[in-house]
Amino acid sequence: MKYGFGVDLGGTTVKIAYFDETGNMLDKWEIPTVTADGGKQILPDIAASVAGYRKDHNIPDEALLGLGIGVPGPVDASGTVNRCVNLGWGVFNIAKELSDLTGLPVKAGNDANVAALGEFWKGGGQGCENIVFVTLGTGVGGGIIVEGRLLHGTHGSGAELGHMVLDPRETAVCGCGKRGCVEQYCSATGIVRLAKLRLDKDEAASSLRTLTDLTCRDIFDAGKAGDAVALEILDQYYDYMGQFLGSVCSAVDPEAVVIGGGVSKAGHVLLEGIEPYFHKYVFHAASQVRFALASLGNDAGAYGAFKLAVDAFAK
Amino acid sequence: MKYGFGVDLGGTTVKIAYFDETGNMLDKWEIPTVTADGGKQILPDIAASVAGYRKDHNIPDEALLGLGIGVPGPVDASGTVNRCVNLGWGVFNIAKELSDLTGLPVKAGNDANVAALGEFWKGGGQGCENIVFVTLGTGVGGGIIVEGRLLHGTHGSGAELGHMVLDPRETAVCGCGKRGCVEQYCSATGIVRLAKLRLDKDEAASSLRTLTDLTCRDIFDAGKAGDAVALEILDQYYDYMGQFLGSVCSAVDPEAVVIGGGVSKAGHVLLEGIEPYFHKYVFHAASQVRFALASLGNDAGAYGAFKLAVDAFAK
Repeated sequence: MKYGFGVDLGGTTVKIAYFDETGNMLDKWEIPTVTADGGKQILPDIAASVAGYRKDHNIPDEALLGLGIGVPGPVDASGTVNRCVNLGWGVFNIAKELSDLTGLPVKAGNDANVAALGEFWKGGGQGCENIVFVTLGTGVGGGIIVEGRLLHGTHGSGAELGHMVLDPRETAVCGCGKRGCVEQYCSATGIVRLAKLRLDKDEAASSLRTLTDLTCRDIFDAGKAGDAVALEILDQYYDYMGQFLGSVCSAVDPEAVVIGGGVSKAGHVLLEGIEPYFHKYVFHAASQVRFALASLGNDAGAYGAFKLAVDAFAK
Repeated sequence: MKYGFGVDLGGTTVKIAYFDETGNMLDKWEIPTVTADGGKQILPDIAASVAGYRKDHNIPDEALLGLGIGVPGPVDASGTVNRCVNLGWGVFNIAKELSDLTGLPVKAGNDANVAALGEFWKGGGQGCENIVFVTLGTGVGGGIIVEGRLLHGTHGSGAELGHMVLDPRETAVCGCGKRGCVEQYCSATGIVRLAKLRLDKDEAASSLRTLTDLTCRDIFDAGKAGDAVALEILDQYYDYMGQFLGSVCSAVDPEAVVIGGGVSKAGHVLLEGIEPYFHKYVFHAASQVRFALASLGNDAGAYGAFKLAVDAFAK
């Protein structure tokens, strides 16, 4: 049995986990992400943390198959990062650099893609060969697994599902500079935006009006309590989600759609809300899709990062 | 050097071609598709034609690596056809059945997917690892190649790009029963529909008004001649195509988009028309896409079908 590391590099913390080859997580810890100075210190910090762990636990080279890392930006199949704005990084080969620093074989991928691989391997998509993973947080990220392999994309930005176009008539501008992106409707931020637009439309009574700092959770809670305006907002949200996932599934024909991120904390009510709208929009031949909640939470990235290394380096 | 057959099964004719392993087409011919009696005769006819060709040219078993076939309907990775309405077929394993009839290893795929594989191998997408292929004919078909492999989809209906949703507010119904599908705007039929809607809107002078049976080609011809209404229709068409391909490329991040089918006969003016609108809608990280016209015409299906067999059976 061989072992290895999975690293999930975020804008504020780096999650590092130690696994056996079959994907049992044996240990995990975090270090801060030091973004000062163009993020120069980030890889040396990771290498030092891994070296320290190996020393403390007497892990020799021959016990290790390698290390995988997920990065918040585009990474192509060769390991070249193409700018990570959050980290201050430009263009360089992270796989080569981190391999030089750690002495281990390294494989790198985009963070949302890698989380998809984690959920595919050990989470909500377990047992499937083809999945679509979406993470509904501040933004909308995604990952597509085709016959067990991650779709990296030519420029390392495969499955930027949050920037597919849902409404070409939209006038509000997305963070990416375009108009009408999935992210503007389907993210946790998007549903709050939809709610505010609805509340501003008329004077209909709603418990949501009493809240000063409306959140995604408030809307789901009010819906569960039967608030009519909240239910209307959720219906509109499910319609957008149905259109979004219907289009993606018509293109990709997956076995399962796995949904993670902040919005997914609403639980099965979210899946039950989306399904009827999904069937309104999906092509019939691709409609037999199982909807599942992501189950690995914040560990999805570390699992998926390690799976990248397993796929690349395990014998 | 080994050899093999590529078969493109259509609703009226079956195109059969004989190839060497490297993809040189050495011969091609057609037989009629006999759809009477639930299409019972189709596979025996193909097997008899292949057997006749082998007899005429003295081709022994050991010279052949196998046969590939493209089918007008969903086919999963195992070769199971899931209904071909045009042919009268239900659900069965075409790969196994045709293999029993010919004595050759057989691999099957969906016709648009297989045409994508042909264009990827020997046509407009040559030299790329990741392409999106769209065929703009009576309908809109598609194929997605990821790192050199065809995305079949879980139910054999991968890349049904014509049934992604472009406009959720559409009231007209698509052939598939949904509303607002890509096919309703971007097919050869779709552009004629857009033209008729535009012409009915007002009395603006246009050479298109003199035509009794408006075709896609008429609209491009009138546009080239400077007809203002035709140019307006084409602009609207390019906007729909930009939204469509922008969404697909944000999801898949291909190196090239290859466009075939009747509409592509308009030539480079089509690509030049689409590109600015594409950039309006695509996510920036996936925007470095090369647009190319399909170059294999009606032979794309036979090339791609044979490539299926090469990928599956060549040593």
